[in-house]
Amino acid sequence: MSEITGQTRLYAIMGEPVAQVRAPMVFNRLFAEAGLDARMVAFQVGPADLAAALDGFHRLANLDGLIVTVPHKIAILPLLAELAPMAARSGAVNLIKRRAEGGWIGEMVDGLGFAEGLRTAGHDVADQHVLLVGAGGAGAAIAFALAEHRCGEITVFDVDPARAEALVARLRTDGRPARVAASSDPAGFPIAINATPLGMRPDDPLPFDVTRVDPEALVAEVIMKPRETRLLTLARAQGNPVVLGERMLDYQAPFVLDFFAIPRP
Amino acid sequence: MSEITGQTRLYAIMGEPVAQVRAPMVFNRLFAEAGLDARMVAFQVGPADLAAALDGFHRLANLDGLIVTVPHKIAILPLLAELAPMAARSGAVNLIKRRAEGGWIGEMVDGLGFAEGLRTAGHDVADQHVLLVGAGGAGAAIAFALAEHRCGEITVFDVDPARAEALVARLRTDGRPARVAASSDPAGFPIAINATPLGMRPDDPLPFDVTRVDPEALVAEVIMKPRETRLLTLARAQGNPVVLGERMLDYQAPFVLDFFAIPRP
Repeated sequence: MSEITGQTRLYAIMGEPVAQVRAPMVFNRLFAEAGLDARMVAFQVGPADLAAALDGFHRLANLDGLIVTVPHKIAILPLLAELAPMAARSGAVNLIKRRAEGGWIGEMVDGLGFAEGLRTAGHDVADQHVLLVGAGGAGAAIAFALAEHRCGEITVFDVDPARAEALVARLRTDGRPARVAASSDPAGFPIAINATPLGMRPDDPLPFDVTRVDPEALVAEVIMKPRETRLLTLARAQGNPVVLGERMLDYQAPFVLDFFAIPRP
Repeated sequence: MSEITGQTRLYAIMGEPVAQVRAPMVFNRLFAEAGLDARMVAFQVGPADLAAALDGFHRLANLDGLIVTVPHKIAILPLLAELAPMAARSGAVNLIKRRAEGGWIGEMVDGLGFAEGLRTAGHDVADQHVLLVGAGGAGAAIAFALAEHRCGEITVFDVDPARAEALVARLRTDGRPARVAASSDPAGFPIAINATPLGMRPDDPLPFDVTRVDPEALVAEVIMKPRETRLLTLARAQGNPVVLGERMLDYQAPFVLDFFAIPRP
């Protein structure tokens, strides 16, 4: 890898904490493979500092884009001048870049990475009915990305029924078949997805009753830490195919490069 | 060198333009030698953006210090909460770091690097009278640093007599022998220093009449681009020892590390 000079273009992943982020390693390897004089670093910014930090970063003429991570993915929305299509639909953002006319534009590619992770693991979602548990920013991004991949009806459950209803309404407005579920029961679905934070802590309840998952049904997950949640361990043990949450990140790199207008290696 | 991770501590050199800066190469090599998980990058920030950029960078919890370069060395002063001793005396700043109690503290080590550059080139300034042409931020930093090295009387010339008088007054207040010169004539001085911008452009006039420099007298320079100015080329041709402007940067690294509280390798 070439050394960092005054001409090196900068990218950053912004969040708090940042010690655990993998994006600098992933993208610096891609930049090196593509022969680009660019580096991604981590920017540790807490919630109270987000607005002023963003205003400052906008003045940084050699910073070409930011990956936005926890806890800023939704809080950042009112600070942006424009939302790209997947961000507008999802109500959440994980990428921002400067606009020529001022301000930031945000996009959300977590869902696209998630869908690509399923596809490359050999799971074709076309016409498959999906149970989506969790209708927050991650759930919404996944719903719209799976709809792009022409999945079947999306059934949404959230402990907050209003949130499930709101996502279903947005999906329908977008012409996507969707309905609200009265419970998180996964029986009868060929694909069941956890898009809640349940499973980050060892004593969390399961997001849905894994013993009720159909034989052969796919169980997928957004949680990256632990790498394999209890939900996935149990599903795997009873013979179901599973997809780890980390694949959402592993497979979103091409969409990140596209948004930042970096040629794919 | 270890790869950049979410735990890597950040440093930056801030200015505009930044394409030409050498600090990232110099300091990233020092960080690697010291086994530190740290990186220096360039932050391109223009004059109109300085205040907002600084406010933003203050929120960046893993950014541990900034080198400040052209055009911000004097403009940054009103944006700082505190000046360390050499910055307060020089009226200019080339390093800043966050204070625990809020705001930034600035320091100026260009002069210390300059003096160290003379010393390591074998020129002992102790008791040597100095002609200093140029009483701006660089000139002031050099004057106070040479005074620390116990040079003899400092004679200051500036095209703006008020600026020369102000620097001489500050030197005297600090107990340093100094006087204002009526002309830039270098005759009679064992050391003659250009601390003006004259020499950056090929058609600039000389800062002082090099043919009037004493035989054996040292001619030194703050300009780094071109690497050897016409002043130095002419002085060298007539047999005078010379010291290049770039030594000011080459020899300030230890002072930068000290200010940022980084162990010297």
